[in-house]
Amino acid sequence: MATASGSGMGGAESFPSTPLATPIATPVSTRSVKWEKDVEDAAAGTLDRPLLHKRCTNTTSQMAVVGANTCPIESLDYEVVENEVYNQDWRSRGKLQIFQYQALKWALALFVGLVVALVGFFSNIAVENIAGFKLLLTSDLMLKNRYMMAFVVYIGCNTTLAAAAAALCAYIAPAAAGSGIPEVKAYLNGIDAHSILAPSTLLVKIFGSVLGVSAGFVLGKEGPMVHTGACVASFLGQGGSRKYGLTWNWIRYFKNDLDRRDLITCGAAAGVAAAFRAPVGGVLFALEEVTSWWRSALLWRTFSTTAVVAMVLRGLISYCRGGHCGLFGKGGLIMFDLSSRQATYTATDLAVVMLLGILGGLLGALFNFFVDRILRVYSLLNEKGARSKIILTVTISVITSCCTFGLPWLTSCTPCPPELAAGKCPTIGRSGNFKNFQCPAGHYNALASLFFNTNDDAIRNLFSAGTDREFGAATLLTFFVTVYALGVLTYGVAVPSGLFIPVILAGASFGRLTGSLLGSISGLDTGLFALLGAASFLGGTMRMTVSVCVILLELTNDLHLLPLIMLVLLIAKTVADCFNKGVYEQMVRMKGLPYLEVHAEPCMRSLVAGDVVSGPLITLSSVERVGTVVETLRRTGHNGFPVIEEPPFSAAPELCGLVLRSHLLVLLQGRIFTRARAKTGAAEVFRTLAPFDFAKAGSGKGLKVEDLELSEEEMDMYVDLHPITNRSPYTVVENMSLAKAAVLFRGLALRHMCVVPMTQGRPPVVGILTRHDFMPQYIRGLYPNTIPR
Amino acid sequence: MATASGSGMGGAESFPSTPLATPIATPVSTRSVKWEKDVEDAAAGTLDRPLLHKRCTNTTSQMAVVGANTCPIESLDYEVVENEVYNQDWRSRGKLQIFQYQALKWALALFVGLVVALVGFFSNIAVENIAGFKLLLTSDLMLKNRYMMAFVVYIGCNTTLAAAAAALCAYIAPAAAGSGIPEVKAYLNGIDAHSILAPSTLLVKIFGSVLGVSAGFVLGKEGPMVHTGACVASFLGQGGSRKYGLTWNWIRYFKNDLDRRDLITCGAAAGVAAAFRAPVGGVLFALEEVTSWWRSALLWRTFSTTAVVAMVLRGLISYCRGGHCGLFGKGGLIMFDLSSRQATYTATDLAVVMLLGILGGLLGALFNFFVDRILRVYSLLNEKGARSKIILTVTISVITSCCTFGLPWLTSCTPCPPELAAGKCPTIGRSGNFKNFQCPAGHYNALASLFFNTNDDAIRNLFSAGTDREFGAATLLTFFVTVYALGVLTYGVAVPSGLFIPVILAGASFGRLTGSLLGSISGLDTGLFALLGAASFLGGTMRMTVSVCVILLELTNDLHLLPLIMLVLLIAKTVADCFNKGVYEQMVRMKGLPYLEVHAEPCMRSLVAGDVVSGPLITLSSVERVGTVVETLRRTGHNGFPVIEEPPFSAAPELCGLVLRSHLLVLLQGRIFTRARAKTGAAEVFRTLAPFDFAKAGSGKGLKVEDLELSEEEMDMYVDLHPITNRSPYTVVENMSLAKAAVLFRGLALRHMCVVPMTQGRPPVVGILTRHDFMPQYIRGLYPNTIPR
Repeated sequence: MATASGSGMGGAESFPSTPLATPIATPVSTRSVKWEKDVEDAAAGTLDRPLLHKRCTNTTSQMAVVGANTCPIESLDYEVVENEVYNQDWRSRGKLQIFQYQALKWALALFVGLVVALVGFFSNIAVENIAGFKLLLTSDLMLKNRYMMAFVVYIGCNTTLAAAAAALCAYIAPAAAGSGIPEVKAYLNGIDAHSILAPSTLLVKIFGSVLGVSAGFVLGKEGPMVHTGACVASFLGQGGSRKYGLTWNWIRYFKNDLDRRDLITCGAAAGVAAAFRAPVGGVLFALEEVTSWWRSALLWRTFSTTAVVAMVLRGLISYCRGGHCGLFGKGGLIMFDLSSRQATYTATDLAVVMLLGILGGLLGALFNFFVDRILRVYSLLNEKGARSKIILTVTISVITSCCTFGLPWLTSCTPCPPELAAGKCPTIGRSGNFKNFQCPAGHYNALASLFFNTNDDAIRNLFSAGTDREFGAATLLTFFVTVYALGVLTYGVAVPSGLFIPVILAGASFGRLTGSLLGSISGLDTGLFALLGAASFLGGTMRMTVSVCVILLELTNDLHLLPLIMLVLLIAKTVADCFNKGVYEQMVRMKGLPYLEVHAEPCMRSLVAGDVVSGPLITLSSVERVGTVVETLRRTGHNGFPVIEEPPFSAAPELCGLVLRSHLLVLLQGRIFTRARAKTGAAEVFRTLAPFDFAKAGSGKGLKVEDLELSEEEMDMYVDLHPITNRSPYTVVENMSLAKAAVLFRGLALRHMCVVPMTQGRPPVVGILTRHDFMPQYIRGLYPNTIPR
Repeated sequence: MATASGSGMGGAESFPSTPLATPIATPVSTRSVKWEKDVEDAAAGTLDRPLLHKRCTNTTSQMAVVGANTCPIESLDYEVVENEVYNQDWRSRGKLQIFQYQALKWALALFVGLVVALVGFFSNIAVENIAGFKLLLTSDLMLKNRYMMAFVVYIGCNTTLAAAAAALCAYIAPAAAGSGIPEVKAYLNGIDAHSILAPSTLLVKIFGSVLGVSAGFVLGKEGPMVHTGACVASFLGQGGSRKYGLTWNWIRYFKNDLDRRDLITCGAAAGVAAAFRAPVGGVLFALEEVTSWWRSALLWRTFSTTAVVAMVLRGLISYCRGGHCGLFGKGGLIMFDLSSRQATYTATDLAVVMLLGILGGLLGALFNFFVDRILRVYSLLNEKGARSKIILTVTISVITSCCTFGLPWLTSCTPCPPELAAGKCPTIGRSGNFKNFQCPAGHYNALASLFFNTNDDAIRNLFSAGTDREFGAATLLTFFVTVYALGVLTYGVAVPSGLFIPVILAGASFGRLTGSLLGSISGLDTGLFALLGAASFLGGTMRMTVSVCVILLELTNDLHLLPLIMLVLLIAKTVADCFNKGVYEQMVRMKGLPYLEVHAEPCMRSLVAGDVVSGPLITLSSVERVGTVVETLRRTGHNGFPVIEEPPFSAAPELCGLVLRSHLLVLLQGRIFTRARAKTGAAEVFRTLAPFDFAKAGSGKGLKVEDLELSEEEMDMYVDLHPITNRSPYTVVENMSLAKAAVLFRGLALRHMCVVPMTQGRPPVVGILTRHDFMPQYIRGLYPNTIPR
């Protein structure tokens, strides 16, 4: 029977989406209840602290700012559910099956690498060809002096591509907009929202990203590649599908969240590796930025996935060098050639580099601030529907086109350096350092060389060494300001948009500008300055250290740069950390995803676990009436229910364990009922159901309570929950410090934690803590002025 | 009062060193007790499982094979002890103090980097000069054809140096022998044995390593550098010393195991960075091999420490290039110049590389097997005392000298390649590819070029590209076999000895041998083959992937090699993992250190927490008679005692928390006693003692029970334990699956875990689980045939 003990609430995870979840209790002012009880307890003289009487429910809902309609959020089940089904499954696995499982897990990880490499390669070729065709068309018209026509073609191509990308995002998969790294980060923190990694999101992410980058936006395809990698891994890790008959014996072993988590980590790393051709950087990125729980075994597996990516890409690129890939040339995946050429630095050099770090940190923090503000504005527009999303995107596209086409007219033409051969300056083709734009023969337009190019080529131009006087200070300043502003404006439109490229572009131009201004007192190359500038901006916005450092090293292939890059990154991160959080953390928060931080909030130290459990607690008896179970499942959205062993099965009520909603549904579907209230035992269950039937389906695919069709007679029978009850749920005593409970919850990646009473003679469980109960905003709502202990 | 409830045993950590720890119970056969109780429980009809009645004590002692006298082993306290002292301390810290703490923690981490870099640099210079002087002396005599004299000088120098190193190790710090990486690994897993990181160990490690490497042994200084780094960090992280008046306010914040752990991780990473000049590799090594718990914040801090190392080393080396450092030349820290020069590989190349990986894995696993066997033999000799240690070392030194001096005589002289200038071949100086040895002018001795050199130079010779025909197959085979055998023989002598160099030497010669045999079917350079061979051996013995890969990349400074190195590493590790464990894990196990593995043993899944708690459980009352406390501390070596709240302070006995031995001693020392049995409260405690008084002293330095001097009268008074009781100990219910309890214990880095009863009406705590209770050998001893659940 379902007991509403008026204390603690079980598994409130999908609460905001299921208003049915507050059936019994009417929310009462927490504070008043609290103090009332305090007095009672004090009178009873047994307890120092108020206990477990909150009738309020936990409503830390998604205050999503970006991507208006976030879907219902569930937590993932990373805890091993040690019930008889699990034990049966585990015992039934022979050595061969364990080997199959291991081998298949490896094969899948490598396959993810292969697929991600192919996708990365495809999107690169597509961008190179589409953007290349667009730029060729425009520059041909420019050469014929038909400037107006060129502008029309240019802006027409850009807006068409932008509108297509926005339409894909707005109508098919809204979750595909933006970088995707915050979503992957949240998923790996245990937050499941179906659309985050859905196949539709994957497709839109790939094509939307190609279209968006080709449209000449100031955005990159690196962030989206991470999301793509995670989506590919999630798709492959579904563990087969019953619907399509894909249920081989060995595929079913992956039908659990733990294996999926590992695979998706590999996918995210593969995405970075494919985007930057940086296999070690990919692993470190996954470790530093994306995952919340890391296992040593994962290091190895992730590493092999990225190794596959690196090898496949290398093979494909050498194939393309033969000219088989259209306009895809030496551009391709980013790879900059830059050498330090000097082994020692003077003290002045170091001082200049430190200055760069400080400025980069400041500008990076400012960038995060602006992005935050602009996203809040955009979210108001985006909420109005798909059409307004497309209009916003097109508007930004037009602004971008006007800037990139218009600004080069403001600069005068520069004569080509005399030492260069005629073919090299100006370059009339697709890529190269010197764009002629509107200039006469023998001259080039410096600003056009940066603007009128793909972003990859612009970065390559900025990073190129030994070209100290190619770009003047005014050119660089104009470019920097424009790119910085456009970068802020572009992020948040309904297009898959990575932040790496805008930040690198802005940072590189800023660094080169600093270099050309301070070149007289420092002996470093301006190309190196550009690299250090990019590093400082990356450190200032993303707050990553090791992974950005390794990615930059892998991009430039010169390890001698390491100490300088490290220095600049550390300074930039330290400076920026004084002002705000990293851009991805900021976005996770803005999207209202209940992300569990590593460190407990300071306010938690003055509270105990019993202080935050919210009611009503719904428990099931170990042998329960079918009707009660069904009713409980219908009434609530909870995912876990404490099971109480009651007389006659035990002398006194005691906690038997925790049962999951999905397992309850499978058991009910199997109709293993008895007329009398008696244990049926596990053997009876396994006569009808196999352990595999209890495996967790892909997100959004499991049984629902509406799918059950039970007769009136069946509703009056009893069901034995013992076989599916997790006998070893993690528990905390109600007077456990909340901070330490949070460490346990986060450290072991739990979804439910049972709170048990300290004193005897009370119900054996007094509440359940879930992710939402540890959210700082919820706790601060309960206790606006935390009471010191 | 001390209750011997006959169930569960508290904090058995220092048990093997304190035979007093089994005062009450006589060990009874576990099995018989178990089944007896089973029957009882079945009769009572309340429980499915036997519960908590083992009267045996946990005696998983150190079966140390290596380094005979391991000192008493304690666990480290990583859990936050949330008692009133802690809360008081935390509340009293202002913003300024928190900033001080942060700033100082950073400063210490950077300072560790600086010191480790200086130590690394010093030991390099010392080795280069001592070994260089020795080789110069010998080759001068050789040039004068006084071969016998040269041999006498050579062997004399070597044995003297070896004897000195062994004497240092044997008499001053036996813990300094060997690589040191297993010890650091164990420390960071929470195992504290005082001498592991003591200052004497540090000094012997540095000087012993210099002497050992100079003595021409086939061993490296890389492993010892890691240990040195950890020792330096441990020394700096002591948090001041009362004895020497070094107790600044801000230094005392580091008097806890958590901060020390962070610092020692930085130190270990700095050691790798200093040994290989590989800052990123150092961080990854610490992450992959050394630490057991990793925090994201640590990544950043470790990274900055290694950045400091890299920058300081770079500065010092460029200073030495000016010729200010004696014989220290371009040799110095390892840095190999090797380029792939080719971007594509054929399928044959890949097949050859795979073959190399497989063979490397097999030979690596075999190496581990031999090392294991030889260590068991050596430990018998080493146990006999310091003198036999020295004799063993000198014997191995003589064998090594005979091999390195004798074997080159077996090969005939090779004429110098005609394209080389006269000065380059043969090289008469210190380092170079072509040693003339006994050969006439214009000829060189290939084997001497490898043997008659420092190990670093030998590796450089093997790695050098474009010298395909310098070393014949016979030369390489001889060298490989000798180095492989000497590597096995040398590890385990009483000298600080790293395994990296022997493994790289053997691997490189093996790889080059394969290359020269298969050169006809593969287009890869033989130098590249040597590198891949080294990678395969490293993968096969140490089983590291990412860190070895990055270290090799940082050594060779060519990222194009990445895919091949990755491939070979993965294959070698996979192959070797089929046979045995990595060499460091093997050694941790052999030294009998109670290392907690990440994964629970499969046998734990069929047991529950209550099955392994061992007795007798010793508890204290929340207000306890002083005499009882003192007696308990004297009688047992336990580190933690459950505190029971008893009437009149509560209605029924309930678990108040856990109190630590060190805190008890401080409280007793402070003499905060009352005549009546009553609570005194925290305020009374803080009138006499400051929170700092409860800070954990450096290992082996805290108060001891023998230091207490209490009068008879005081022994009869009462002491209130509430202020020092950790009110939030982590607990598990007795029927919690042992596997899940192990996950909790290891995941949160606990030292004690209270086991609470499932049914009501029993004592509030039924036992304590500590590290030893999770050791597989202990569990297997209790349940030789684990019963399926």
